[in-house]
Amino acid sequence: MKRITKLETPISFISSAAVGGYEEKRGPLGNKFDFCDPSDKFGQKTWEIAEGEMGRVALNTALTKAKLSHEDIGLLVAGDLQNQCVASSTGLHSFGIPFVGVYGACSTCTESLMTLSAFMSTSADLTLGAAVTTSHNAAAERQFRTPIEYGGQRAKTAQWTSTAAGAFILGRTHGAVEICEYMPGRIIDGATADGSNMGGAMAFAAADTIINYFNESGESASNIDYIVTGDLGKVGSDVLKEILIKELPGVERLHTDCGLLLYDFSEQDAHSGASGCGTSASVLASHFIPLLNEGKIKNILFMSTGALMSPSSLLQGENIFGTAPLIRLKSTIGEKE
Amino acid sequence: MKRITKLETPISFISSAAVGGYEEKRGPLGNKFDFCDPSDKFGQKTWEIAEGEMGRVALNTALTKAKLSHEDIGLLVAGDLQNQCVASSTGLHSFGIPFVGVYGACSTCTESLMTLSAFMSTSADLTLGAAVTTSHNAAAERQFRTPIEYGGQRAKTAQWTSTAAGAFILGRTHGAVEICEYMPGRIIDGATADGSNMGGAMAFAAADTIINYFNESGESASNIDYIVTGDLGKVGSDVLKEILIKELPGVERLHTDCGLLLYDFSEQDAHSGASGCGTSASVLASHFIPLLNEGKIKNILFMSTGALMSPSSLLQGENIFGTAPLIRLKSTIGEKE
Repeated sequence: MKRITKLETPISFISSAAVGGYEEKRGPLGNKFDFCDPSDKFGQKTWEIAEGEMGRVALNTALTKAKLSHEDIGLLVAGDLQNQCVASSTGLHSFGIPFVGVYGACSTCTESLMTLSAFMSTSADLTLGAAVTTSHNAAAERQFRTPIEYGGQRAKTAQWTSTAAGAFILGRTHGAVEICEYMPGRIIDGATADGSNMGGAMAFAAADTIINYFNESGESASNIDYIVTGDLGKVGSDVLKEILIKELPGVERLHTDCGLLLYDFSEQDAHSGASGCGTSASVLASHFIPLLNEGKIKNILFMSTGALMSPSSLLQGENIFGTAPLIRLKSTIGEKE
Repeated sequence: MKRITKLETPISFISSAAVGGYEEKRGPLGNKFDFCDPSDKFGQKTWEIAEGEMGRVALNTALTKAKLSHEDIGLLVAGDLQNQCVASSTGLHSFGIPFVGVYGACSTCTESLMTLSAFMSTSADLTLGAAVTTSHNAAAERQFRTPIEYGGQRAKTAQWTSTAAGAFILGRTHGAVEICEYMPGRIIDGATADGSNMGGAMAFAAADTIINYFNESGESASNIDYIVTGDLGKVGSDVLKEILIKELPGVERLHTDCGLLLYDFSEQDAHSGASGCGTSASVLASHFIPLLNEGKIKNILFMSTGALMSPSSLLQGENIFGTAPLIRLKSTIGEKE
């Protein structure tokens, strides 16, 4: 069965916002973020609630940029990395927007944009929707590994969970940046139980998605500016490139990864790169959407990559699964009418 | 903005399957379940993996009933109660079906059917999809409270997390039982931080959804056979009825709750009733879908109810939020062409 859906209904980005913490502000994209809190606390008493607040600030910023009120938004699709997605519900409940919670680990940003597009295509009344994704370094460390106060040593293959959020307002209308296709990812065995090598685990899922996309669409690589993965980091990006060189030679040259863009490796202790679902969300909002909006790039395949595991499954020695849903974004700037 | 979406594309139930454990087999619906394992272990070494296996068995059974292969299914929407939805990914990855993971706590069954309907409406190529929901008593107790071996005493307001799964195959076609409308729920503050009273916390979300549905649709209660909530249990059902008697007098008489149907209160130690997202999934598959299939009931509003919280948020004393998405199901049996 076909996996790619071409959207007949135009779905475009009305606005987007990126919010981050201390490390994100210091990174190469720091000045493009809409709001950063160098304390990482966002005025809250726990890291967990701070993550929710970060999502609230991101959505508020995106609404303000679009000159919209929360009452204009018909559906909110959101997710995060915390147990039971509690950051999304605590942070976003005050808007009172009908809500669909998604879980795809670090694939959440693409998953939420894809899911929101499907809901908006189905309902003519749903003219405006929002997608929000958050992750918080300290909440994630406490949950998946050890609290940061413990000062545990990180492996060289490990990544740095970003304290970041991305919020997007989508409209059921033509616009400068449109979602023209989506393709859900399969659940692919990452062939490792090493929670310090999530990039390596997710690379197989990214490869599965890219290979299927080109096989099914027959698309030429020359029509694509970038294939953007979420947070494979250095290790995962190397694994992915090795697979692509063998399976789709040439395509590997289009690859870039949000986990390689968020931090400055010479200045910041990011090890294999950034991770966390806020990574691809904030890099999309602060970097790729502006490039598309200005017409500097025309077509990208964007796929956040998720490592499907839990603290229990890691302790129980289970393999990590990966998934990589894909959306194709195009810039309509300079297009003939 | 309108919250109810009327589906223009016909989406119908091709097959459904209910799987359970020891208590579910003993309950009033036990004989209607497709498969029960009285050990609750499903041949696995951990409760966590057993939950995933339960989902695998449920989906396999639904596929077999429909005389379909996993290769016929274009999209799988699934979720569970475990941290990071790991039961869904470990249990269902072997099918190789493109996957969208959702998280809505005990609202997962309705959320997954609603989300799958939106994806299927959008894509003409997506003629068959599957939705799977699981929960496991022992995995949930270990995660949210204490391992069952500890023998903790349960409060009288507490519910019994079901060891149950429901799987549904939906087709993009007319059929005996169709999803004709859906409406996502808002995130509603449950006004309690008591993790032993989730029914009470979720009742406000259920009321919000029901009141909005009747106000927006102008529908007469006489056209509805049942308003089915997921797992409010005794305490939550009483709270809901009290609200409905005040806000929509008469409508409260249509109410029933899957948490009240799964166990025999005189024989089983269910306290306030069943909970867990497998509750509404397995009761829909084993009880309501057959009633609709036979034309014994014609129209139901079905809304699984979710308590949005995590072990951390409970320990940190945060309030529990609720959400209650709604789908309207109709039987076409006996309808004129």
